[in-house]
Amino acid sequence: MQEKFKFYMPTRILYEKGLSKHLADYIPGRRVFIISDPFLFKNGTAQAVGGAMKDKEVAYYSDIEPNPSCESVDAAAAAARAHKADCVVGIGGGSSMDVSKIVSCLVTNEGSIYDYYSAGNKKLSPRTVSLICIPTTAGTGSEVTNVGVFTNRKTHVKMPMVNNEFWADIAAIDPELTVTLPAPITASTGMDAFCHAIEAYWNKESLPICDMLAMGAMKMILKNIKTAYDEPQNMEARGAMSAASLIAGIAFSQTRTTGIHAASFPLTAEFGASHGTACSITLPAFIRISSEQAGEKMQTLAGYLGYETVEAFADAVEALMADMKMPLRLHELGVRESDIDHITETALSAAIIQLTPASMNFDTVSELLRSIL
Amino acid sequence: MQEKFKFYMPTRILYEKGLSKHLADYIPGRRVFIISDPFLFKNGTAQAVGGAMKDKEVAYYSDIEPNPSCESVDAAAAAARAHKADCVVGIGGGSSMDVSKIVSCLVTNEGSIYDYYSAGNKKLSPRTVSLICIPTTAGTGSEVTNVGVFTNRKTHVKMPMVNNEFWADIAAIDPELTVTLPAPITASTGMDAFCHAIEAYWNKESLPICDMLAMGAMKMILKNIKTAYDEPQNMEARGAMSAASLIAGIAFSQTRTTGIHAASFPLTAEFGASHGTACSITLPAFIRISSEQAGEKMQTLAGYLGYETVEAFADAVEALMADMKMPLRLHELGVRESDIDHITETALSAAIIQLTPASMNFDTVSELLRSIL
Repeated sequence: MQEKFKFYMPTRILYEKGLSKHLADYIPGRRVFIISDPFLFKNGTAQAVGGAMKDKEVAYYSDIEPNPSCESVDAAAAAARAHKADCVVGIGGGSSMDVSKIVSCLVTNEGSIYDYYSAGNKKLSPRTVSLICIPTTAGTGSEVTNVGVFTNRKTHVKMPMVNNEFWADIAAIDPELTVTLPAPITASTGMDAFCHAIEAYWNKESLPICDMLAMGAMKMILKNIKTAYDEPQNMEARGAMSAASLIAGIAFSQTRTTGIHAASFPLTAEFGASHGTACSITLPAFIRISSEQAGEKMQTLAGYLGYETVEAFADAVEALMADMKMPLRLHELGVRESDIDHITETALSAAIIQLTPASMNFDTVSELLRSIL
Repeated sequence: MQEKFKFYMPTRILYEKGLSKHLADYIPGRRVFIISDPFLFKNGTAQAVGGAMKDKEVAYYSDIEPNPSCESVDAAAAAARAHKADCVVGIGGGSSMDVSKIVSCLVTNEGSIYDYYSAGNKKLSPRTVSLICIPTTAGTGSEVTNVGVFTNRKTHVKMPMVNNEFWADIAAIDPELTVTLPAPITASTGMDAFCHAIEAYWNKESLPICDMLAMGAMKMILKNIKTAYDEPQNMEARGAMSAASLIAGIAFSQTRTTGIHAASFPLTAEFGASHGTACSITLPAFIRISSEQAGEKMQTLAGYLGYETVEAFADAVEALMADMKMPLRLHELGVRESDIDHITETALSAAIIQLTPASMNFDTVSELLRSIL
């Protein structure tokens, strides 16, 4: 077992089918600022959540794009300040929740996100505005992490910002919000959650608490994702997927991710793949190499999930992805042989890649990528 | 899966072999008040932890008895106030940690614990004094719960006090502190941790996060407790037991316990059994009846732990306890046939008994107790 580990996850978790209809019972603050994306505003999800907050002054901001930029953050922060928000609610997949984290801080911290992020030299003062995160996919786990990922439009770099002020006061999980997800999104976000779990599990910074959570989350996802994909209204499968995504989120909130996420960054930024697709496309290949340094642990996992060998486990994941019509080869995303070197270099520039339980250098990573071209 | 659940455990966990030697790095505050029991003061454990806190003003209080009384709490609080403590550290099995929780509050809340506990009508204001809990057994899990159990000397009743101010800021787990535990204490405290895990798992208020943690903790305990019992210096076994106790503590901090703990209260209060012994003596019998309402779940657990049936699992637990020379029959604690009715009534008076996955009434509980007389 690990000689040392740390665990800290102070967010209050509420999980309940239909929770969003009576969330006001749990929400502190009077002046609520709800951040969502245009899709969730058009289909009424944001207003349904806000409408149930009787007796509160609710304002909406719905201009959050996928892979949100720092400029979007600043615009949302200006609107939140104008509303004099004392509670910020992020509703969405990953982007809106990520933005809600920094906006809840910027209400009482002057200036731009650029002052605090990356090369910024200011420090966020302790957050006094409440922060509530409500996931609408079963995927990102952002509701239980202290990370926001923002794109610097000036440098075109997408970078995570990690801050202890970003732990939400409440993560409110209502699986009913996921029933309208189209099947391809159910597949890609669900496999993103699976990647979170397995990357927490094989992580060089793994810890027993998160190993247990990750194993359980993987079992739930393998048992339920295809049903959720085939039968979007199946509340048992949707409920299990929401819980599994949450639990995988807790697991990787402590360990960070590994090579799968490192390789996903260029696949999203330069080839337009959704985050879940960009992650899961390398998942079977990473499972196959993980035994290099985590052989016994991966054998235990394969056995727990019902497979005789790690190879059989990798095959089963690949078959599951094929069943859900997910891309399995990089060329399906538009990647060519001549792109491999650059993708390799970009993946290697993410520090998390060295948390993978296998040697990660130019030769090994480019070979892995070529094997699934 | 459960339709709804909640999870909240805001304590920062630090786990490290040798942690107590450099804990000062993590401890806020300048005026540290260390609460321990006379044994840990005599053997120097309390002073070793305090002595490593260079540059801090450390005071010691070591008069905490097992099953601490409200009078002890008030005496410790008076000493902490006199020291003008800004950080309270509880070092011990369960009692000292429990006392440290309420004392850290009483430093800035005037009056006696009786004002806040049970029939008391005052409400604790938010805690401003830091609270650090350091377990010296692998057993109670008190370092990650918001519960303190105190005995009212006026009424002779031992009652839990649950308060959100009781979540420690830091749970500091150093498995090296457990190597001096005598074998019988290793056995009884370790089986107490096992009871926490199984009572979280089969609990009517169970939740998937805690199910996963509980299963993992039970597996670790079954794999390591006998080694820790036989080889007190075996750091791998000690480390695993400390981690398992912590993880079982997180699990039951959310669900509370069930019939095993309910029945333990009179066995401790009236027959002098240690808490761990009083819990584990009914464990095999409770495993045997748990299938009444948790059949499928208990079968899953038995399989995960390597047993074909729940009955085989119960037999194995009994055999393990016998191997560690733990009492298996109530008469070994001095209980007579004529005591059963009274023990039954006292156990049934604890609300948690109804969280057991079996019908709990006078007939069923007295029958269970008679079966192990």
